[in-house]
Amino acid sequence: MPDLDLIVKEIADEMRARPDRGEVASYIPELAGVDPRAFGLVVIDGAGRVAAGGDADTPFSIQSISKVFTLTLALGMVGDRLWRKVGREPSGSPFNSIVQLEREQGIPRNPFINAGAIAVTDVILSGHQPREALGEILRFLQFLAQDSGITIDETVAASEKRTGFRNAALANYMRSFGVIENPVDYTLGVYFHHCAIAMTCRQLATAGLFLAYSGRNPLSGHSVISAERARRINAIMLTCGHYDGSGDFAYRVGLPGKSGVGGGILAVAPGKASICVWSPGLDAAGNSHLGRIALEMLVKRTGWSIFGT
Amino acid sequence: MPDLDLIVKEIADEMRARPDRGEVASYIPELAGVDPRAFGLVVIDGAGRVAAGGDADTPFSIQSISKVFTLTLALGMVGDRLWRKVGREPSGSPFNSIVQLEREQGIPRNPFINAGAIAVTDVILSGHQPREALGEILRFLQFLAQDSGITIDETVAASEKRTGFRNAALANYMRSFGVIENPVDYTLGVYFHHCAIAMTCRQLATAGLFLAYSGRNPLSGHSVISAERARRINAIMLTCGHYDGSGDFAYRVGLPGKSGVGGGILAVAPGKASICVWSPGLDAAGNSHLGRIALEMLVKRTGWSIFGT
Amino acid sequence: MPDLDLIVKEIADEMRARPDRGEVASYIPELAGVDPRAFGLVVIDGAGRVAAGGDADTPFSIQSISKVFTLTLALGMVGDRLWRKVGREPSGSPFNSIVQLEREQGIPRNPFINAGAIAVTDVILSGHQPREALGEILRFLQFLAQDSGITIDETVAASEKRTGFRNAALANYMRSFGVIENPVDYTLGVYFHHCAIAMTCRQLATAGLFLAYSGRNPLSGHSVISAERARRINAIMLTCGHYDGSGDFAYRVGLPGKSGVGGGILAVAPGKASICVWSPGLDAAGNSHLGRIALEMLVKRTGWSIFGT
Amino acid sequence: MPDLDLIVKEIADEMRARPDRGEVASYIPELAGVDPRAFGLVVIDGAGRVAAGGDADTPFSIQSISKVFTLTLALGMVGDRLWRKVGREPSGSPFNSIVQLEREQGIPRNPFINAGAIAVTDVILSGHQPREALGEILRFLQFLAQDSGITIDETVAASEKRTGFRNAALANYMRSFGVIENPVDYTLGVYFHHCAIAMTCRQLATAGLFLAYSGRNPLSGHSVISAERARRINAIMLTCGHYDGSGDFAYRVGLPGKSGVGGGILAVAPGKASICVWSPGLDAAGNSHLGRIALEMLVKRTGWSIFGT
Repeated sequence: MPDLDLIVKEIADEMRARPDRGEVASYIPELAGVDPRAFGLVVIDGAGRVAAGGDADTPFSIQSISKVFTLTLALGMVGDRLWRKVGREPSGSPFNSIVQLEREQGIPRNPFINAGAIAVTDVILSGHQPREALGEILRFLQFLAQDSGITIDETVAASEKRTGFRNAALANYMRSFGVIENPVDYTLGVYFHHCAIAMTCRQLATAGLFLAYSGRNPLSGHSVISAERARRINAIMLTCGHYDGSGDFAYRVGLPGKSGVGGGILAVAPGKASICVWSPGLDAAGNSHLGRIALEMLVKRTGWSIFGT
Repeated sequence: MPDLDLIVKEIADEMRARPDRGEVASYIPELAGVDPRAFGLVVIDGAGRVAAGGDADTPFSIQSISKVFTLTLALGMVGDRLWRKVGREPSGSPFNSIVQLEREQGIPRNPFINAGAIAVTDVILSGHQPREALGEILRFLQFLAQDSGITIDETVAASEKRTGFRNAALANYMRSFGVIENPVDYTLGVYFHHCAIAMTCRQLATAGLFLAYSGRNPLSGHSVISAERARRINAIMLTCGHYDGSGDFAYRVGLPGKSGVGGGILAVAPGKASICVWSPGLDAAGNSHLGRIALEMLVKRTGWSIFGT
Repeated sequence: MPDLDLIVKEIADEMRARPDRGEVASYIPELAGVDPRAFGLVVIDGAGRVAAGGDADTPFSIQSISKVFTLTLALGMVGDRLWRKVGREPSGSPFNSIVQLEREQGIPRNPFINAGAIAVTDVILSGHQPREALGEILRFLQFLAQDSGITIDETVAASEKRTGFRNAALANYMRSFGVIENPVDYTLGVYFHHCAIAMTCRQLATAGLFLAYSGRNPLSGHSVISAERARRINAIMLTCGHYDGSGDFAYRVGLPGKSGVGGGILAVAPGKASICVWSPGLDAAGNSHLGRIALEMLVKRTGWSIFGT
Repeated sequence: MPDLDLIVKEIADEMRARPDRGEVASYIPELAGVDPRAFGLVVIDGAGRVAAGGDADTPFSIQSISKVFTLTLALGMVGDRLWRKVGREPSGSPFNSIVQLEREQGIPRNPFINAGAIAVTDVILSGHQPREALGEILRFLQFLAQDSGITIDETVAASEKRTGFRNAALANYMRSFGVIENPVDYTLGVYFHHCAIAMTCRQLATAGLFLAYSGRNPLSGHSVISAERARRINAIMLTCGHYDGSGDFAYRVGLPGKSGVGGGILAVAPGKASICVWSPGLDAAGNSHLGRIALEMLVKRTGWSIFGT
């Protein structure tokens, strides 16, 4: 058994010292203003051991990491019918590409590109008011992270909405094919808000435990989803979780993971641990630069790669 | 420990009985003429246990499965310099698409689509005569499968060449960007021939053992590649091994695998087993229809998914 | 000098009798309900001779024909600066494709595809309230057609807006690149309304006279634009006026023209006549089926092709 | 009647003095070595008047201008059946794009992009040896230009072949769809050779006369094609003759024309004149920079635009 505390501490120290930090997202002021020196890493295993390093308790904007949880929620609501509205193949395109939608009749390739997550949000919204749907998403995250203090950063949500024309293009486009069924403004409103949820590495690692442990949080004992569904969500995270850098992440890190433009990455080592890393600087594909490097180091030292020891 | 003999036997029996067999590839007569009722499955673990069912010892055309071995060979020759000529991201396109090449300046997205495998073949060819390069590939497979009887089906190779205009288009296109450096005819010649290698499920499962066991064949004791490289090749198999059905294969089966249009699939359960299944009928994405279903059953019964138990 | 009255009458008679009428646009009820048997044709020359056949005085929805007039208006407002926001190359894509926008950073290829016309509308809107911009467009058409009775069909405009998600996608997409500068709803509102203007063949042929006569209406004596600008607008009509059927229209008819999904085509025979034809049934490319055939006959009999006698 | 001699002389003088000359094509040494200061312009009308300026009698590589003549020849051989193999819509893509071919099942969009011209060449080749087909093309040009001294520059042809991998990709791709029917090497051989024909401005302007005069050379009295076919070829030149700069050429110049990467442009003023201009420097779209400017000046002074006076 690796000494997680030591490993996490060493990684956090090394990451804090590195000069190459990537570029902080700049499309909204709330993200642009985040200190690029921030770095946090939390590893939690099924026995309740927690190894935390760096800014483990600083909330950050989870952004696209929310897509893992909205996917989980939507599958719980409509089951495999979800796959009528969204595929589960890697996209081969940037996160906000609309080209693929035209080629495939408005069906986004997977739930982790923007278009797919908007379609998933639309499914969650169905038959509810935006406020209710958003409440449901937020409560689900609070339940998973066992922390009722998790909130939406309304300033971020407002900025997302103010600048979110490309997402509006995607939503309207899918609406034209009937893939989006609710009023576009409603769906986008919920989408922009769940991307604006703020969480810490500790909260996110806790929230991800059910994916590492066959659908059940081994600490709380709560069953969230079936073991098969957990495996399947992990598979989608592996193939699609890092936009057009998913292949490279699998190649280098070897764990299912989902990144967000806020610099967070939630990673899952099945049967071993739930992991969250945060460093705001991004690489060219829009994924946390140091976050990926830190996970690569962690996996190398722990031997947790799903692709072999 | 699951009773592999029983499981494999039951799966083989069930598969033989199923009426839905997909469509046998028809672009060359040698493939079109294969009996769609054929089905073989072999599982080999690191302790040398072999569970075989169905047509386990019937040779079939390995086709794109050869891409796993040429990738391994090319990495051994030039190391990470290979990645200057080919990416490692899922393609989001059919196996023979040329569109992606135009968008990305002649660099194929990964070594498992046709363009990528042709580029890899070109690297192996470099500085050799086609005959020598092909000899090297064949000897590598004979070594991995520990069977000097493995041969190239020259009739298949000739048919591939006669009909391979789309691959010639890909090769010429890459040549125009300098990604292919040898005479196009040489590179294509080697490519068509290594796709035409004939092997049995038993031979392929043996040949794949090194990928399941950290780069080393635990039966022969031969070290083939480093453990890290084995993990990385497995990662590429997971994200790119089934063309535009790679996401679905990961979702349903949960193992790294590489399919061929001859109906074979080589799959790797890291630390557990090397597996080869063969059923000539293909699904819409060009992957063995029953092969995938058989693997799904196998993983369900053994709990070997890399995405959790 | 051809006997225009006779020619127009014969064409109208022949067209009325033909069984092949294309498919009436069905995306909004107002268009779907138009009688496919309708057919009108009006030819007006610079001497004031008018040859009219069929339903020459039935108002129909001009739809994309309005794009000729909004282009003229926008060029009058900002001159060649317009070309910073829209290209003037044929698109090689359907009228509502968004793919091209992604490839070319939000700049639509020409002012006659939907995206381009929305960008042009945004330029007209600039600094105005939608109502004012729309008033300006409408007054321009009334002035050109010398008929103050021309109005907007508000029912059509409302239907366009209700179903116009794909146009909303285009507008939001361009907004994300800064090509659209006004609130998207404003721009789309004006766009949907000017497409919903209702005019007769006689009104449209009159309105197009300035394009046939070097920028000046030879009947009223009003100068509208310079001769050079008239030639240039004609050139764009020739290369881009019929969406992805522009090449075929040039090949068969040989006149600059602009079609609308309402079944109208405005065509210009420089120095000879302004022509409007209307038949609601469309061909596969979205252009009036009989309208194109009627124009082909007209040009054959008059020798008016710009490509030679 | 404009004083053509004066106009042509003034344009030639002005063009010779301009410092902006574009970039000479550099992909083969024979083109790269051409003096960028060269400039020639010849205008011939139906009365036999010839106005020549600059390097009117220097042979240059006609390159893609040959596509006008191979199209004419192929239409003469198979008539409208040609359009089963090639479209006649502007491409919206660079001259050597392969993307469009994938989207449209191997059918090139028009006969003036490389893929289309290769398909047309294949039609001419049909049932002949490459040598015979090439002889036919060459004799056709000698007949049109009334000059038996026109030859193929074998050095250029060899260089084209040596570097022509992208064209080989296009040809193989079309072969895979059955659009190309002859051996790819044969078709490409003829294609590379007819692009390598060397002609002077005077010869090309003479050869184009039949397009300006209803399919008949008014000087020799020879009928080449029907008036309708001449109009139609002119239409295709107008919409597709300048690759992805066709719209701009129509907008600025207003004449049907076909450019070649050797710096030549053949332009047709129906009923007025046949024109050839040559200046080796190209603009970003691959068309002669000064050639286009010279034609713009010529049309402005003569009032020959087909889009109005």
